Amino acid sequence: MNKNRLEAFSDGMLAIIITIMVLEIKMPHGHELKDLLLVLPAFFCYVQSFWFIGVYWNNHHHLLHTVKKVNGKIMVLNMLLLFFLSLVPIATNWVSETEFAPVPVAVYAVVLLTCGLGWTALQNFIEKESDWTPPIKKAMDRQTRKGWISVVLYGAGIPFAFYNPFISEALFVLVAVMWLLPDKNIEKAFSQDRD
Amino acid sequence: MNKNRLEAFSDGMLAIIITIMVLEIKMPHGHELKDLLLVLPAFFCYVQSFWFIGVYWNNHHHLLHTVKKVNGKIMVLNMLLLFFLSLVPIATNWVSETEFAPVPVAVYAVVLLTCGLGWTALQNFIEKESDWTPPIKKAMDRQTRKGWISVVLYGAGIPFAFYNPFISEALFVLVAVMWLLPDKNIEKAFSQDRD
Amino acid sequence: MNKNRLEAFSDGMLAIIITIMVLEIKMPHGHELKDLLLVLPAFFCYVQSFWFIGVYWNNHHHLLHTVKKVNGKIMVLNMLLLFFLSLVPIATNWVSETEFAPVPVAVYAVVLLTCGLGWTALQNFIEKESDWTPPIKKAMDRQTRKGWISVVLYGAGIPFAFYNPFISEALFVLVAVMWLLPDKNIEKAFSQDRD
Amino acid sequence: MNKNRLEAFSDGMLAIIITIMVLEIKMPHGHELKDLLLVLPAFFCYVQSFWFIGVYWNNHHHLLHTVKKVNGKIMVLNMLLLFFLSLVPIATNWVSETEFAPVPVAVYAVVLLTCGLGWTALQNFIEKESDWTPPIKKAMDRQTRKGWISVVLYGAGIPFAFYNPFISEALFVLVAVMWLLPDKNIEKAFSQDRD
Repeated sequence: MNKNRLEAFSDGMLAIIITIMVLEIKMPHGHELKDLLLVLPAFFCYVQSFWFIGVYWNNHHHLLHTVKKVNGKIMVLNMLLLFFLSLVPIATNWVSETEFAPVPVAVYAVVLLTCGLGWTALQNFIEKESDWTPPIKKAMDRQTRKGWISVVLYGAGIPFAFYNPFISEALFVLVAVMWLLPDKNIEKAFSQDRD
Repeated sequence: MNKNRLEAFSDGMLAIIITIMVLEIKMPHGHELKDLLLVLPAFFCYVQSFWFIGVYWNNHHHLLHTVKKVNGKIMVLNMLLLFFLSLVPIATNWVSETEFAPVPVAVYAVVLLTCGLGWTALQNFIEKESDWTPPIKKAMDRQTRKGWISVVLYGAGIPFAFYNPFISEALFVLVAVMWLLPDKNIEKAFSQDRD
Repeated sequence: MNKNRLEAFSDGMLAIIITIMVLEIKMPHGHELKDLLLVLPAFFCYVQSFWFIGVYWNNHHHLLHTVKKVNGKIMVLNMLLLFFLSLVPIATNWVSETEFAPVPVAVYAVVLLTCGLGWTALQNFIEKESDWTPPIKKAMDRQTRKGWISVVLYGAGIPFAFYNPFISEALFVLVAVMWLLPDKNIEKAFSQDRD
Repeated sequence: MNKNRLEAFSDGMLAIIITIMVLEIKMPHGHELKDLLLVLPAFFCYVQSFWFIGVYWNNHHHLLHTVKKVNGKIMVLNMLLLFFLSLVPIATNWVSETEFAPVPVAVYAVVLLTCGLGWTALQNFIEKESDWTPPIKKAMDRQTRKGWISVVLYGAGIPFAFYNPFISEALFVLVAVMWLLPDKNIEKAFSQDRD
């Protein structure tokens, strides 16, 4: 029951974060096709951030599935992660408003980095508290590895933003692609666990 | 449990999309009756989009009811559908702000079209994964047919918008009316299934 | 399960409606005490609407408790009620922005009236579909009576707004007070029902 | 079931309050690092309010866990608490927009004070209605004590705001720190209760 409310609250916040972000896409100023084209770069930012939040929701879903007992520290770490994720829409907005200026892109990278670190902290803590079966452990380790690669690529996005923001953007796209296909091994591990 | 969170997250996003849309109806600028009349066309757009999202919620409710096991692909297809649906409020806003200009109406038709296609993809995938009983299969097939008619009418709305946006609007109203009455056959199929 | 999703979706929309309304209270323009006093009439509007939505949520909670089987018509009527309720924040906003001008107050009365009628329609339909025990029937009849008194007072608020908007406001406060104390009889009826 | 909907609705409102607050952080006006520094004081306000709402959510979670039967008075008191909490984002906004001017900071203190009092009222009422086991009673008494200390510090923040708003801010930070570590005793009490 405990866990259900934590999941429900996290789902609520993630649903709001992801939806509000899309709602903040600025409408084109005129009513011509060229006005629409002008908002396309901004649109790209939103698609990317939508995808990142969606991936976090998906992984959060799997991770909390392995939790047996929620305690205060999990709540605090989860709240911290949600806080970092809640900064994604403003950072996205800033990037799209300034059309990929160096500082906003670097700040976007910092926000993604804090999300990545917040996630890793939550996952590590839950791992210590839970008795994962070997297949889940193995699947989660793959997740951890992907998590660290993401953190490194987000981190690299910070200095590159000042050299050329589009290199940073390319790195973010790389992370997004890496998480594109849902990990079949996790699902297999979970269904083995249920059997 | 798995499925519950998917339903809860989808419900959360749909509730936000539908509510925010209505909240974005611009207030009349003055405080006279004629100021109120000026916002009526915009109001019409919102009622229409509210209805479309409501129908999707209703169908989503039935469709997920038939799912036994959620997997990663269902999650991705569901997220994709939610993404397309989340674009409805901005498109609605653009149509209402420009008072049914051709390009915004065409873009609105495109957004509805992607929603319709996203829906069809999700339904087809779920059909392949699930063992639907013959009555559910039959009811769902009727849904699919209505879905394809909608897609064709939305698609026709795109070129017509450049000829006369009100023809496109008439097509959208046609789709809305087609979905107006909840399909009794589906409910019958589901209650037979439960027995 | 069916019913849970209907409740969850309604709760989601009501939570968003009620929260967004409060969030739209305009901040004072300066940072003096007198700037704060200027927003007090607006604040009063919001408190009132917050209370109305809160009462609807409470009654909705009781009403859906009596539903055994959700069908398509209940969904449509519920969606209609939610649509009317979703108009409360804009109407509230218009009243508070124009400082209780006649037309906005009359429109606010119309919105409250449609909510009241939407509610009555939903309750009557559910009554016909369900087998209410006599104590629940009796408690619900009291609700119905209060509902009709509200509808009459809202209705009276429309013409009075053009004579003196504050008479309309007084009528709305009367309705709010009438619903102020949660009906003990309903709770008693429900607990008798459970025993 | 009754209780589940109350929790779900409260979670929904708290999730919206906390998320919208963060979304309202103003984007920097330019795209330089110094533009980012200018929004840092505002950012601090939001972090603080995020934390306060997060603590309320956490405590609400524990408190409702002890409730056996939801009645109308609990609903009204809960709604009142949610109303006060829903004022936190506007107060936060006003403080951050006026850069810690005396009146806004005092109003922020008043809002926090009403939240604290609303909380205490809810907790006291639930205590009277429920049969708490001695360990839960003891843990809750510690909560109550912390609650009253918070109320006193918020109260002190009102006059101090007119002398020096940063003293008030320091008092708020003190309260935040006091609630920083989740109370292990509560968790212990609850798990003893379950055994």
